[in-house]
Amino acid sequence: MKKSAILLVASLCSSVFASPAPKNIIMVVGDGMGPEYTTAYRMYMDDKSTPELEWTIFDRLLVGMASTHPHLSNGYVTDSAAAATALSTGIKTYNGAIGVDIDKKSVQTVLEFAKQQGRKTGVAVTSQINHATPAGFAAHNVSRQNYDEIANSYFDEKVNGQFKLDVMLGGGWKYFIRKDRNLVEEFKQAGYSYVDDMSQLAQLPTKQPVLGLFADVGLPWALDVQNKPRLPALVTTAVKQLENDKGFFLLVEGSQIDWGGHANDIAAAMGEMHDLGLTLEWLSHYVDSHPDTLFIVTADHSTGGMTIGARGEYNWDPEPLKHLRSSPEMLGKQLVDVNNRVSLANEQLGFELTKEEQQELTVIDSNDPKVFSKVIKKILDNRSVTGWTTGGHTGIDVQIFAKGPGSELFGGHRDNTDIAKTVFKLLGKK
Amino acid sequence: MKKSAILLVASLCSSVFASPAPKNIIMVVGDGMGPEYTTAYRMYMDDKSTPELEWTIFDRLLVGMASTHPHLSNGYVTDSAAAATALSTGIKTYNGAIGVDIDKKSVQTVLEFAKQQGRKTGVAVTSQINHATPAGFAAHNVSRQNYDEIANSYFDEKVNGQFKLDVMLGGGWKYFIRKDRNLVEEFKQAGYSYVDDMSQLAQLPTKQPVLGLFADVGLPWALDVQNKPRLPALVTTAVKQLENDKGFFLLVEGSQIDWGGHANDIAAAMGEMHDLGLTLEWLSHYVDSHPDTLFIVTADHSTGGMTIGARGEYNWDPEPLKHLRSSPEMLGKQLVDVNNRVSLANEQLGFELTKEEQQELTVIDSNDPKVFSKVIKKILDNRSVTGWTTGGHTGIDVQIFAKGPGSELFGGHRDNTDIAKTVFKLLGKK
Repeated sequence: MKKSAILLVASLCSSVFASPAPKNIIMVVGDGMGPEYTTAYRMYMDDKSTPELEWTIFDRLLVGMASTHPHLSNGYVTDSAAAATALSTGIKTYNGAIGVDIDKKSVQTVLEFAKQQGRKTGVAVTSQINHATPAGFAAHNVSRQNYDEIANSYFDEKVNGQFKLDVMLGGGWKYFIRKDRNLVEEFKQAGYSYVDDMSQLAQLPTKQPVLGLFADVGLPWALDVQNKPRLPALVTTAVKQLENDKGFFLLVEGSQIDWGGHANDIAAAMGEMHDLGLTLEWLSHYVDSHPDTLFIVTADHSTGGMTIGARGEYNWDPEPLKHLRSSPEMLGKQLVDVNNRVSLANEQLGFELTKEEQQELTVIDSNDPKVFSKVIKKILDNRSVTGWTTGGHTGIDVQIFAKGPGSELFGGHRDNTDIAKTVFKLLGKK
Repeated sequence: MKKSAILLVASLCSSVFASPAPKNIIMVVGDGMGPEYTTAYRMYMDDKSTPELEWTIFDRLLVGMASTHPHLSNGYVTDSAAAATALSTGIKTYNGAIGVDIDKKSVQTVLEFAKQQGRKTGVAVTSQINHATPAGFAAHNVSRQNYDEIANSYFDEKVNGQFKLDVMLGGGWKYFIRKDRNLVEEFKQAGYSYVDDMSQLAQLPTKQPVLGLFADVGLPWALDVQNKPRLPALVTTAVKQLENDKGFFLLVEGSQIDWGGHANDIAAAMGEMHDLGLTLEWLSHYVDSHPDTLFIVTADHSTGGMTIGARGEYNWDPEPLKHLRSSPEMLGKQLVDVNNRVSLANEQLGFELTKEEQQELTVIDSNDPKVFSKVIKKILDNRSVTGWTTGGHTGIDVQIFAKGPGSELFGGHRDNTDIAKTVFKLLGKK
């Protein structure tokens, strides 16, 4: 080919391959979801009737990995606030910071920029809606612990004279209905539809601003509401409410994978992974039918130092985790007052305790539900061969998953701040 | 554009973007190198004089991730033999299997196919050359433990009447110079140049078959030969020996990352990571100047359940790991007979022990070097905030890194068997 022809082909190729900017962007954070969690989830979902280990939705969407460290003056292991701020603003900050930099100055987030550009915005999470990750996208505060201030700011701070969030779905009565201020009433007065039971989600007037709070703090564990997937219900509602001609930005969080990690509770963590997995399945179908939508999934960090295999055993067995009727935390509460502990545990765990396991449960002389749930978790760790090294976070890189226009920009190795920078570009920031 | 024009552009684009098949393929295995090791290595290499955390060679090469489980009848956690067989043949087998399937039948490996096609072949590793990973590419045996049989097979088994391996560099006197058989002599008689000291590598006649054995079993820890990078020396020599018109296939292994993991020795593991990192830097430059060469890097599994942060601390500190003059194992041996343990430990660790740490060392009443090295490792774990859950392997997915023609075929999520299948295709297997 002549040089001019080569240039023409190269130019045509780049226009063929470069995606148009997405109209809608959905960012999904699996809080605490390091690569050990997505790997374990594949095993947890393994269909034993086939000779293969089936791919999960995560496998179908994997594009890259990201480093997660906070501003290096804080070391190499991040908390959720600094990581959310990195993912929302593109800057590194200190652990605990909500949308502010190392000097405690506010920095615009991708959600705020999207709103400024005329898009609708929302958050749908299984924690309280003013918890670190959603707050990192929609608020600015020197500390994640200032829950009331962050809740207030959702009403008080505006972008172009408008509320920052058109859709807020998650937990948080404790912070939004207080003695000193009732933010639910204020939002209702300002035209928001309010619901406080997930069964009411389907009745919401469509394309209207909505506030839905379904728990005092975080939602119940997925394991404790097994017939009612929580995050899929929140996300399908949020998307329906947000759809409009100018596009939307939605922040989704599978918040409690992290809480399972902190509690060193492999059963609860897998329950949360499945709630997120179902959400991603739905979002993937949504992108198929809405090719103007990009969704990006990542984690803020990993939690618990969880390992697939432990104590010298070359094995991991998710089977004992698959039949629980309630979370270990809930079971711990139930066991405090019951006469026949073994009978209840067998029933709720879905397997028969061995004599040694029965012994561990029957010798407990305490009224503390945590003492009971700790024994249950130890039984599940031993049976599943799960290891843990911490009640806190670890510094391992996390994965990036993406689908839709622009998804190719998130491949290979990235820093978590690069994700925000790319989202800003896709939203049209110069 | 008209449809015919679009098809023309699409066809031209695909021919512009599809790489030609590589002439040379270098497969690199970081044994035991889960994503926690590559992340930790970035922190270990952090230049503290800059505000950023610098990317490593791994970051620049990341393309995807792979699942590692053995044949599911063996559960979800693999050993190095089953993983090497998956990476070399594209089939799942049982733990311990060397190049044989679940029914113990031999399966052709990518290395053997490359040889069959007229390419030169080699292995360059820091373990003994008949250890599980290199054996998985060059031998067939029902058990990795049959070291002598595997060593014999390197001489006895032929492909197209030729020796399977033109270049063998690593450890293994114990298995190659035995009372019942001297394989070194046999190889020399058959025309191989033999060296037994790494200083002789530069004097080898070029483009000739070579056998280089530099230790009874595995090579000394990288930390114990710090001024002489081992794997880079072996790999540069191997490549020089293998270069020829018909191309080559080289299997490289950073074997002892895994051994650091098994020993729960974070300092030794980071030393091994650096030896591999330097090797990859050289290979990356080689591919720049030899664009007909593909190199692929992955791990067979992760080891030790190592975590970056532990025991509730939101921190990981590689600083105490950076100044060791000898490995904890070697230091343990030195400490057995010394009068002033604290003085020697301070000198070899590169920092001053605290009073508590001194106490831990001085109270030891044993002649067992392992007791001493265990205390040293505990001190390093506490200072660096490293966690471990096992002396064995874990099931976490591992990363895939690649550069050169065909590297784009290894992106996203893969199973380890897919890597072999793609390499077979790139080698021309129909």
